[in-house]
Amino acid sequence: MKTSVAAMLSVRRGTQAVEFYRDAFGARVLFFFGDENSGVVAHLAIEDSDFWVTDESPEHQNFSPETLSGGTVRMVIVTDDPDALFARAIAAGAKQVWPVADQSYHWRVGRLVDPFGHHWEIGKPLTGSRTDSH
Amino acid sequence: MKTSVAAMLSVRRGTQAVEFYRDAFGARVLFFFGDENSGVVAHLAIEDSDFWVTDESPEHQNFSPETLSGGTVRMVIVTDDPDALFARAIAAGAKQVWPVADQSYHWRVGRLVDPFGHHWEIGKPLTGSRTDSH
Repeated sequence: MKTSVAAMLSVRRGTQAVEFYRDAFGARVLFFFGDENSGVVAHLAIEDSDFWVTDESPEHQNFSPETLSGGTVRMVIVTDDPDALFARAIAAGAKQVWPVADQSYHWRVGRLVDPFGHHWEIGKPLTGSRTDSH
Repeated sequence: MKTSVAAMLSVRRGTQAVEFYRDAFGARVLFFFGDENSGVVAHLAIEDSDFWVTDESPEHQNFSPETLSGGTVRMVIVTDDPDALFARAIAAGAKQVWPVADQSYHWRVGRLVDPFGHHWEIGKPLTGSRTDSH
């Protein structure tokens, strides 16, 4: 298999977080284990890229943003219509940090925080200035 | 373009972090902007999957693990030979959290912490128990 890398987000209320990521970003569930009492481990995908969601376990150095009062990783979603996906996530319960707008670094992007404390930037490179491999 | 999602890791000493991820994981640099004084934004890839590295900016809610004394996301690398990649990362300066071993959840995986405080699990599903889409 190809080597791959993906983020695993620590949260409180893991089952609710998985529901939120489905509603907000259209993520599909590849794998789900556990329940509200035991905690969950879920493997999600947005089209061809994936991420993981799991209940925090501070005793194992897995901290939610609620526990640390901040996050050490933000998630970046690149999509053709960031305005639409941003609005969908807000409708699902995310809060705007800053709105989708054309930025000086040639991306159209906005930032929100989800109900579990993780931050997401949703955007796309502006035409003629693509710097990534997508 | 396809919609995609990737993690953006906040660190101190961003230029050194990019060098570390190249040495430790064989990441290639897709995009690099900035310098030690201004801070950097880098887009890296391991084969077909990507992640970002950027200097922290606590005033914008981007915190390094050093600042928060912990992390809210861990990174998961899936690869055919996790023992070899784990050893490579340790040789590059990572510290073992727990060694690569067969786990009760049917993965062979170990965990390390990089010099910038981010945690990485390096593993593979054991034969006959694959639960992911890779």
